[in-house]
Amino acid sequence: MASGTFDILHMGHVHYLKEAKKLGDHLTVVVASDNTVRKLKHQPINPQHIRVQLISELKAVDTALLGSDADDIYTILDDIKPDIIALGYDQIHQEETLTKELDKRGYPNIKIIRLSEYQAGNDLDGTRRIIQKIIAAHDFQKKMEQIEGH
Amino acid sequence: MASGTFDILHMGHVHYLKEAKKLGDHLTVVVASDNTVRKLKHQPINPQHIRVQLISELKAVDTALLGSDADDIYTILDDIKPDIIALGYDQIHQEETLTKELDKRGYPNIKIIRLSEYQAGNDLDGTRRIIQKIIAAHDFQKKMEQIEGH
Repeated sequence: MASGTFDILHMGHVHYLKEAKKLGDHLTVVVASDNTVRKLKHQPINPQHIRVQLISELKAVDTALLGSDADDIYTILDDIKPDIIALGYDQIHQEETLTKELDKRGYPNIKIIRLSEYQAGNDLDGTRRIIQKIIAAHDFQKKMEQIEGH
Repeated sequence: MASGTFDILHMGHVHYLKEAKKLGDHLTVVVASDNTVRKLKHQPINPQHIRVQLISELKAVDTALLGSDADDIYTILDDIKPDIIALGYDQIHQEETLTKELDKRGYPNIKIIRLSEYQAGNDLDGTRRIIQKIIAAHDFQKKMEQIEGH
């Protein structure tokens, strides 16, 4: 099982999902609901059903489904019954806390595996960097219009 | 064979490639080089090798490769030898001119098929709309900062 927002798809996402797929034979991806994204990060650019659809079109992904709006991440485990939870290199979950909670809630056998970062040199891979590049191009264009006229 | 820039991946792209795949048994996608994109559209957000990699990760795609920097689209046909060229609903090629040119250049048997538009209601699917949404959110934030202070 892997999880995330997957708003503007980039190679960091794909790397995470490919690495997660290598850990087992069926990869289920939980895509965070719009409510969850708004609560944790920001207003998503793409709505949840589009984010689920796009993820389900990737070769590495066997099943993509929408996460619950519930506050905790444990409610979905009964449906998925994963053997392994794959964490992205920068996902905020603490392995230790997660292991303890899984144990407490009756999932002592779920393994948690933290995956490596996508090594792309200076490539533009993160959503935030893509957004920054779009905004920088926009600001530059505005300045040029002020200098050159419309 | 399908082709495009595929800068910020959206459901319109995926729809086009899935429909193209249905026309045959092997889908080769030609991804426009950075030089070609700059010439025809604008500076791409994602560099060409990233755009090729992302496209190759889609279930519908068998082979993704980088287009040539040459001005005409015919140089790549000798390598690919496609049975069918699938055109996206909004791609600027004229079927009639294309057919005549293919005939003239010794490819009389390549079929050209124009595909349908992705029907997504009011969903945000096009790259341009994604960029507009990012810029609108940025401008709104700037205005709020002026009103509320940083």
